[in-house]
Amino acid sequence: MEKFKILFKPDNVEVEADRGEVLLSTAIKAGIYINSSCGGDGVCGRCKVIIDKGKFRTEPTGRITQDERKKGYALACLTTIEGDLTVRVPAGSRLDIKKIKEEDAKLLRLKGIYSQAEDTPEAAEEISLKEVFAHSPLATKIYLELPPPTLDDKVSDLERLYREIRKAKDVPIMQTGLTNIKRLGALLRQSDWKVTVLLGKRNETTEIVSIEPGDTSTKNYGVAFDIGTTTVAGQLVNLNTKEALGTKVTHNRQVVFGDDVITRIVYATEEDGLEKLHHAVIDNINEIIRELITAHKVNLSDVNGIMCAGNTTMVHLLLRVDPKFIRMEPYVPTANFVPTIRASEAGIKINPRGLLACVPGVSTYVGGDVTAGIVASGLDEAEDLTVLIDIGTNGEIVLGSREWLICAAASAGPAFEGSGVSCGMRATNGAIQRVSIADPQTVKLETIGGAPPRGICGSGYIDALAELFLHKILDRDGRISRSIKSSRIRSSEAGLEFVLAFKDETAIDADIVIQEQDIENLKRSKASIYSAASTLLRKLNLDFKDVKRFYIAGGFGTYLDIEKAVTIGLLPDLDRSVFKFIGNSSLVGSREILLSYDAFLKAEEIAKKMTYMELSVEPGYMDEYIQALFFPHTDMSRFASIRGA
Amino acid sequence: MEKFKILFKPDNVEVEADRGEVLLSTAIKAGIYINSSCGGDGVCGRCKVIIDKGKFRTEPTGRITQDERKKGYALACLTTIEGDLTVRVPAGSRLDIKKIKEEDAKLLRLKGIYSQAEDTPEAAEEISLKEVFAHSPLATKIYLELPPPTLDDKVSDLERLYREIRKAKDVPIMQTGLTNIKRLGALLRQSDWKVTVLLGKRNETTEIVSIEPGDTSTKNYGVAFDIGTTTVAGQLVNLNTKEALGTKVTHNRQVVFGDDVITRIVYATEEDGLEKLHHAVIDNINEIIRELITAHKVNLSDVNGIMCAGNTTMVHLLLRVDPKFIRMEPYVPTANFVPTIRASEAGIKINPRGLLACVPGVSTYVGGDVTAGIVASGLDEAEDLTVLIDIGTNGEIVLGSREWLICAAASAGPAFEGSGVSCGMRATNGAIQRVSIADPQTVKLETIGGAPPRGICGSGYIDALAELFLHKILDRDGRISRSIKSSRIRSSEAGLEFVLAFKDETAIDADIVIQEQDIENLKRSKASIYSAASTLLRKLNLDFKDVKRFYIAGGFGTYLDIEKAVTIGLLPDLDRSVFKFIGNSSLVGSREILLSYDAFLKAEEIAKKMTYMELSVEPGYMDEYIQALFFPHTDMSRFASIRGA
Repeated sequence: MEKFKILFKPDNVEVEADRGEVLLSTAIKAGIYINSSCGGDGVCGRCKVIIDKGKFRTEPTGRITQDERKKGYALACLTTIEGDLTVRVPAGSRLDIKKIKEEDAKLLRLKGIYSQAEDTPEAAEEISLKEVFAHSPLATKIYLELPPPTLDDKVSDLERLYREIRKAKDVPIMQTGLTNIKRLGALLRQSDWKVTVLLGKRNETTEIVSIEPGDTSTKNYGVAFDIGTTTVAGQLVNLNTKEALGTKVTHNRQVVFGDDVITRIVYATEEDGLEKLHHAVIDNINEIIRELITAHKVNLSDVNGIMCAGNTTMVHLLLRVDPKFIRMEPYVPTANFVPTIRASEAGIKINPRGLLACVPGVSTYVGGDVTAGIVASGLDEAEDLTVLIDIGTNGEIVLGSREWLICAAASAGPAFEGSGVSCGMRATNGAIQRVSIADPQTVKLETIGGAPPRGICGSGYIDALAELFLHKILDRDGRISRSIKSSRIRSSEAGLEFVLAFKDETAIDADIVIQEQDIENLKRSKASIYSAASTLLRKLNLDFKDVKRFYIAGGFGTYLDIEKAVTIGLLPDLDRSVFKFIGNSSLVGSREILLSYDAFLKAEEIAKKMTYMELSVEPGYMDEYIQALFFPHTDMSRFASIRGA
Repeated sequence: MEKFKILFKPDNVEVEADRGEVLLSTAIKAGIYINSSCGGDGVCGRCKVIIDKGKFRTEPTGRITQDERKKGYALACLTTIEGDLTVRVPAGSRLDIKKIKEEDAKLLRLKGIYSQAEDTPEAAEEISLKEVFAHSPLATKIYLELPPPTLDDKVSDLERLYREIRKAKDVPIMQTGLTNIKRLGALLRQSDWKVTVLLGKRNETTEIVSIEPGDTSTKNYGVAFDIGTTTVAGQLVNLNTKEALGTKVTHNRQVVFGDDVITRIVYATEEDGLEKLHHAVIDNINEIIRELITAHKVNLSDVNGIMCAGNTTMVHLLLRVDPKFIRMEPYVPTANFVPTIRASEAGIKINPRGLLACVPGVSTYVGGDVTAGIVASGLDEAEDLTVLIDIGTNGEIVLGSREWLICAAASAGPAFEGSGVSCGMRATNGAIQRVSIADPQTVKLETIGGAPPRGICGSGYIDALAELFLHKILDRDGRISRSIKSSRIRSSEAGLEFVLAFKDETAIDADIVIQEQDIENLKRSKASIYSAASTLLRKLNLDFKDVKRFYIAGGFGTYLDIEKAVTIGLLPDLDRSVFKFIGNSSLVGSREILLSYDAFLKAEEIAKKMTYMELSVEPGYMDEYIQALFFPHTDMSRFASIRGA
């Protein structure tokens, strides 16, 4: 196929393009971020460019005045390439990434939050999926060499395309929009009847999302997201090979507007509140996508699908749907199952026609992140009674098997995600994730990536608490011993603290410490999760010992020491072989669902099947919680295996 | 429900609105035509208004600057009503109907075309449909009183809506967009859970098109169109009761750019040509809709669906799809089956979220107008061999029964539609439709509506030719007799002419005449249609006498004299009881398909089943045509019943 050179000014970036390629896609390929809120349908008029030189074809549009037209203005989404071009992209048509970054950085600094998206390692022992889902991603590419029409084969261009697609793939209900049809006749002929179609699953139907000249079928990527209240994680996936190329994790920027979902819902009712919350998470998503594609040398225009798993409030805010009715009796969300839309409709910058889907949720307090976790763990296919605990800002507990599913939510707070604790950080490079204490003076640390320590992540805190407790530096109530002598134990303005790493050992030019207030927060978190699980079991006349498999999920990076999680009373005192740490199961599930429509259907089935139990109205829950506010528990008979108990 | 008063400035029009109503719909209800090219999704930014006073809720949008926002600017499509409002609609946001009309009028005057849309009477003897299709219109309204959520019934708003819709109606695949979901929570609560949903058929799926507060279910209208090369006809239909409220017909404004489809396709390749052709027909459609709703006191915002039947080129131009490949070997269109889209995407002004569908076509030269005619006549269900002739600019002949269908097209030209003939006009008020001649001096005329004559329509010309021929004023070659003495026969600059009505009898302050050149054009038209039918039959080793039923369709108004159509050789000399005149079958079929999805599926089935025969490559066709260039025919043995033959 004929290739042309497209030079973008003032960036002075030159890329190669096929005849008939849409200029907006070419710009994105060149790394130039042009605004487009309508998904390239030519209605929003945000992608104005000035073509200084060269041959092109453009659709007339009311968004360009007669005057502008004479000056070479055109909408990039309505313009196809017919020769070498020199194109100027005016400032007003650009997505100003630098400005967004600067403004965000300012806001986040106020909160003391490190905003950069970071690589995160995968859990070493990854989930072995009980069920393997058929490979049928949200976005599929098919390269077609269409037989050109002849006097004996005169079906129309569109029906020819449908016919050839159906030869390659079973697509019962196929749809497409006017934008593609308008371009189809010229595109097929200019590309010598060799095109790549991008097919998208839009719930029960398949859409021809876009048609590209030539064979671009190998370039098909997607990003799976876990949108947590505190942490946003994204994983770049090759939609053809199913390979996960890399994962980035960042703080949810909404944190500046409130720590938990209720505070954010309240904030959403203020003027511009909803808008700010929406943009915050969209910025997170766009930033993660940009960093992933840069790191893995993928073109933005080849990112064709986004799958998001998040709690119900996060999904509302992602789509800019007002969440206020979630906290008004009887507490119902606007939607648990949201339709698949064009990602650009939500402001997400990928292929302008690419799709955004969300994992179906169960109810106000049990969202698609939990459904995704169940899909990932295969809990819904288990023969025996199985528990899944997802440790996040909202801790969710799922109980069940292939017969039934029940779930509950606990307000755990973000302490195990490294928020609201003095030296907390996410499970990324430099985070302390293992702690062993030989004596009150001798501490051995292990950080993620082996880097000098920058802070403590959730698994580090679990280790540290268990070790401090076992060495009696911490009492059962969570107070640091006043009688043990060690230079690591000292008082500060916030009370006693234990120094895990001194300034000269760290990368942050400061000591890394655990304060009594941190311990209090962590204790409340673990108590909230343990008591939610025990209340849920008791309600069903079951006991922890009936549980045959116990999955623990959460953003702990590669490592979680089960023994130590039992020691502090986060997990019950069962045979350790019952437990399995499965990492960020919401992200893994989100990826599975991005890669398989069968997994999407499974998620819908799970969400419909699941019973939700509201713990706050459950008698006895508060008692269970108060009893759990000790290390490991008030009732030590429940933790018989714990040494020194 | 609470009602508010909305005052539009500078029009000073006040209308009542419900709480939660979208301002764009209210404006349309008030008869104020606001631009909107995105269908109310908030992306095009064309519906800017200034709210001077009152309480409202609006979504922030990048289309409104900070500065504009302070001045009260908002997008009408993103604004919902919360109290009495005073709203200014700036000139830039208006669809300037007057300006369009003036420009058009100028263009059309150049061509001598009367541009006003006019009422047209229905064919007296309307088609008795062989098959009655289930009532399932393109757009359906359902009024729902939803049970409000309780602690025992906590499904989300969207699933609640889906659930209640499914109780009322069998809807297997339901979809909706983000725009509706964003509004849903507030809308349901403000309207006390009483809403009307507008459901649209989008091919195999059903879409929740929009949701309105309160019970608006009785207000549901659609317009069926027949988009002909020369004539555009529209019929306003009550989608609930199936009643046809009125029909308007107008010249296709594209006529200024060429008389037939080939000239228009060529014009479409010129700069802005496609754009001009597209706008011309869209203006026709918008004008007909406006006149129909004004005459029948229907609100524009209650017009929810448009069905268009047109030949393949007309459908391409309607959708602004380049038709150029239609006339490049091997002559394939971009699409015969086009997807259902939002009418606003094509520039049609109805409910901004309302739908536009097109009747499926067969091939380049046999479009959805023919498919619609077959649906209307029930030809595809006939036991015996049946013929349908649709007399238009392109004359189509369909032959078949329930076993098989074959069709061909003939370039008849627009003479029988009253174009290209000196005193021709459409079958509307004042058109001469019956002519009887006692002697060369004594002529009796009958006009549509009984008004003083303004011109001659197709059936008038057929009558006149037959009467002139029977009185030997016309010879078999079509020349006016030079020997008969009558003040009605006279010479003019264009040769001999026959005066049907003298100046003082007419409404146009001029004589109404038939010129020899007119007779030549009419003769070619009738020869082209007759010979196409006879060639098609001969190709299948059949003869006219094998035909058991013979439908004649066309825009002839209420009347077509079969005897006289046989006399001039337009129709074959068969037993007259075989023939049935069925009026504008394309329009009737379009209405049936607008009213029934089963009829739409039937049209698809017909289009797939039909075989197209290209006459121009058929040996013998030209001979047949030349033989038919006589009154009634060269071979008089074929017209044995014609007196004086």
